[in-house]
This record gives sequence, C-alpha cells and structure tokens, in this order.
Amino acid sequence: MKEKVLEELRIFEGKVIGVRKYRVELPNGVESTREVVRHPGAAAVLPYTNGKVFLVRQYRFPIDEELLEAPAGKLDVVGEAPEECARRELEEETGFKANTFMYLGYIYTTPGFSDEIIHLYLATGLEEKKSQNLDEDEIIDVVEMDWEEFYRACLEGKIVDSKTIALALRASKIIGTLHSDQ
Amino acid sequence: MKEKVLEELRIFEGKVIGVRKYRVELPNGVESTREVVRHPGAAAVLPYTNGKVFLVRQYRFPIDEELLEAPAGKLDVVGEAPEECARRELEEETGFKANTFMYLGYIYTTPGFSDEIIHLYLATGLEEKKSQNLDEDEIIDVVEMDWEEFYRACLEGKIVDSKTIALALRASKIIGTLHSDQ
Repeated sequence: MKEKVLEELRIFEGKVIGVRKYRVELPNGVESTREVVRHPGAAAVLPYTNGKVFLVRQYRFPIDEELLEAPAGKLDVVGEAPEECARRELEEETGFKANTFMYLGYIYTTPGFSDEIIHLYLATGLEEKKSQNLDEDEIIDVVEMDWEEFYRACLEGKIVDSKTIALALRASKIIGTLHSDQ
Repeated sequence: MKEKVLEELRIFEGKVIGVRKYRVELPNGVESTREVVRHPGAAAVLPYTNGKVFLVRQYRFPIDEELLEAPAGKLDVVGEAPEECARRELEEETGFKANTFMYLGYIYTTPGFSDEIIHLYLATGLEEKKSQNLDEDEIIDVVEMDWEEFYRACLEGKIVDSKTIALALRASKIIGTLHSDQ
C-alpha cells in the first residue's frame, strides 16, 4: 500500500513545523502530490488526584480562541523521551510534580497532512504546587475540575481539543480502577 | 488574551493546506512568531447499525503507515455544509447511505499550529451498500467492527487516529441510549 516518493520539495523550515511537498506514485500507478507538515512530536499529560484533574486554559493563535486543554508540549530537545517531556511540561505549565506517569499510548492528531504524534500520560501522586515556569510567549491559567465534570465536558462537546478528549477516554479505564480501589 | 498580528507572511498555498508565518505581540507586550497551517475544515462520520460500526483502512503518507479511521474528508466545495460533507464522504468511502446524521460537536485536531476543525457525526439508518466512489488518489478498505470492540480499541490504544477516538467517546452516550431502547 506504500506510496513511492518521486520528488521531495522543501517548502518551509520553521521553529515548530517543517513543510514538504511530495510527488508520489500510488500502488495503482497513479501520480499525485502530498503536502506534509513535519512536527517533532509531543507529549500530553492528565494530572489526576482525589477525583480531580488539572487542565490549562490558553489562547490559541491559529483558531483565535481560548481553549481548555491537558498540559502538553512538543519534544523540545533532540531525542527527549516522551515521558521526560510530559514531566517537564506538567511542571512548567502547572507547577505540579507527579510521582507516577502511566503511559496511555499515542495518537496521531491529523494523519492526513501531518506526522504529529502525541504520547499520552496519566500523572498521579501529585506533589505540592510550585509556581509555573513558562516560556516567555506562554500565558496559561491552571483550571481544576472534577473528573466526572471533565469527562462529561469531553463527551458533550464542551472540551474540543483532540488530545484532551483522547486522554479522557484512555484514562477512563484507569480512573475507574483507582476509584474502585478506594 | 488575544495576540496582535504585526505582520503576516504567506509561505505556501497548497491544494489542501496553506502555511502562514506571523509576527505577533502578546498581551504582556512580548513579541513572538506563530507558524500556522490553514485548513478548510473537515467532517468525520461514524456509521452505526445493529451493534456494528464501519471504518476505513488507508495508507497515510505523512506517517508512512496504514491507519484504521472513521470515514472523513475535508470540506471540498466552498461553503459546503459539514453534514453534506459527512454524507458525501460516507457514500464515497464506504458505499453506504444513512437516513440520520446526529451531530456530535466538533474538535480541533491540533490547535497549537493549525486551525483544522473536524465536525463529528453519528450516522444511523444505513442503506444497502453500493460500490465506493473514490478519488483517483484514494485506496481505501472498509472494515466492519462490533461497537464494543471498536470502543475497546480506542480505549486501549489500538486505534490511534484522534478524530476516530473523539467519535468513539462522543458517540458512546448515544449508542448507550440506542442499546437501552432495544
């Protein structure tokens, strides 16, 4: 099913994304073009404690809206392990440290035009809050929510960020277990 | 919280995406740049009947992998209504027509660098299968799955496409109702 690359055109090399255009040959012999946004990948983390989760609210320039999302960030350092990234972003964006990071698998956010992969984590055993440590171009509010309210907001379409919805679904299995342990 | 655009640079105008680079001023006075992928928006649809869903398996060039996804496509025609798009893509990719499209809200797939919005639908009342009607650069297999198996695959990380996972979560509320009606 693979598509054969006949030509690669490097369109743009940004600080976050790279853009390429390819001329490809399909398995059926048809020639076509593919536009691809290269992304370094990212990690997103749902911090959970005592029936509560912590989210971040921030302005998103591409959509000109404020969104409620799980803490997340791109794999900054070359070769940074996704869990390290999750740990770093959690601390920078919310001030929380967590003892345990449970891996919930990954998602492709938009495989039709980008290779962005996001690794998902549930963070538990949260330690006392320190102050945020944001990049100079980040302005982020931390929002505390009951797990049930968070899950319902994802289910009913009030939370619309794809990685955050995936975290709600993937974490639901484990949160159920945590509750039944109590 | 809005960011003020100081300068817009048009980097690329493709057949699917457009790429822009902006110089912006943040509310705190800091100047920064934003790289944005403009996308026309899309619709995705989960076709459901008698405890079964229908998905599509296709090769995705950006990630060089085959993925299992809900039928979906971008808003092709200027001003195309999302539900029309969902109806068209369902028929083209799977050969199914549906009597009822229930709107499950929308998601932003990757609001950090793109404005892509995907409108989500649950399609029920499926009519007899006709043959697919694919674009010449599409090669797509239709896959039938039990709802429970589909939901579990999203939960356990075997299905990794973000819009498909969002559909599983959003549809779960309604599928539960449909089942309890029987």
